[in-house]
Amino acid sequence: MGKFITFEGGEGAGKTTLIDSLKKYFDENNIDYIATREPGGVKVCEEIRNIVKYSTEEISKRAELLLFSASRAELTQRLIRPSLESGKIVLCDRYFDSTRVYQGFANGIDDRDVMSITNFATNGLVPDITFYLDIDPKVAFLRKGGQDKGDRIEERDLSYHYMVRDGYNKIAKNDPRFVILDATLSKETILEQVLQKLRTENIIE
Amino acid sequence: MGKFITFEGGEGAGKTTLIDSLKKYFDENNIDYIATREPGGVKVCEEIRNIVKYSTEEISKRAELLLFSASRAELTQRLIRPSLESGKIVLCDRYFDSTRVYQGFANGIDDRDVMSITNFATNGLVPDITFYLDIDPKVAFLRKGGQDKGDRIEERDLSYHYMVRDGYNKIAKNDPRFVILDATLSKETILEQVLQKLRTENIIE
Repeated sequence: MGKFITFEGGEGAGKTTLIDSLKKYFDENNIDYIATREPGGVKVCEEIRNIVKYSTEEISKRAELLLFSASRAELTQRLIRPSLESGKIVLCDRYFDSTRVYQGFANGIDDRDVMSITNFATNGLVPDITFYLDIDPKVAFLRKGGQDKGDRIEERDLSYHYMVRDGYNKIAKNDPRFVILDATLSKETILEQVLQKLRTENIIE
Repeated sequence: MGKFITFEGGEGAGKTTLIDSLKKYFDENNIDYIATREPGGVKVCEEIRNIVKYSTEEISKRAELLLFSASRAELTQRLIRPSLESGKIVLCDRYFDSTRVYQGFANGIDDRDVMSITNFATNGLVPDITFYLDIDPKVAFLRKGGQDKGDRIEERDLSYHYMVRDGYNKIAKNDPRFVILDATLSKETILEQVLQKLRTENIIE
């Protein structure tokens, strides 16, 4: 079995930049991996994502959570599990911790309910390591600086994003699977911290 | 609170005919009701239905169940609960028992998992009465007689539909909420049995 590594954090925390640096390092060192994110090129997931992210109608909190879980079920079965079974490292930009935090914690839905649905959706698959990029939402917002118009979820107000950060910290501090990274550090420093962790766990040399 | 009445059965069992007769009876007797079915005119549900029913890609069993549940969460919150709260009788063509049977029982997913997700999706709403129209799938198929091309689920082979019937019987026989109707009887007889039950429960006079 390969190793399953996920990346979490609020909008503008730098997940994409970190994953890109890591991919470059893996490419240069001939390390076998795939990098994915929902919808991950899976057509059904793309269709679900279009509903969740761009529906013009309000969607209830429970339906939103179930839609994200449906998409995750599909991506897990179709892409993540087969890649792990073939021995690859799988890098995934957001996984169920995003749902726990955005659809659960910040929407007032109990984490036990979220985890019960999540366990069903993923058939019990849990990441080996989760890197959480922690940043003050206000700093992240300035850093992102009106780059692009947010989608339905990104547009929620700042207090929502503070709840998201609070949620991440709550779950990250209570689970040894998490590595909390200070997202205000330089991208070189963050990459080195990630590589160090992967070496310690014997995932890379 | 109004009363929540659902109708279940395999393809071609006669649910639509029964509901139509009942609507006519309610109209003639000035009984306040709404009749719905997924997607029930709710746009998000229609979008989800399009994925589940007509996607050209195979959908995993777990994702299919979660998609139906997401749609149900939306319909319940947006239409069914408000109608019940305004005192209406709600007639619903299929509800979570369909998921238990089609996505659960006939797809090999444990009923406890299905009910746990269902309870979350519906926030615990359970029908007051469920009329189950029981019929041999082969008889139903002949009765429907190539009327229309089936969707992705209707097209599954006969053995799947026998599992569906088996599943319905298992849950219907163990839950007093169910009324099992012999779907081979005349539509007048079936309607009379339904009205009789509604009178016994003081839902109509």
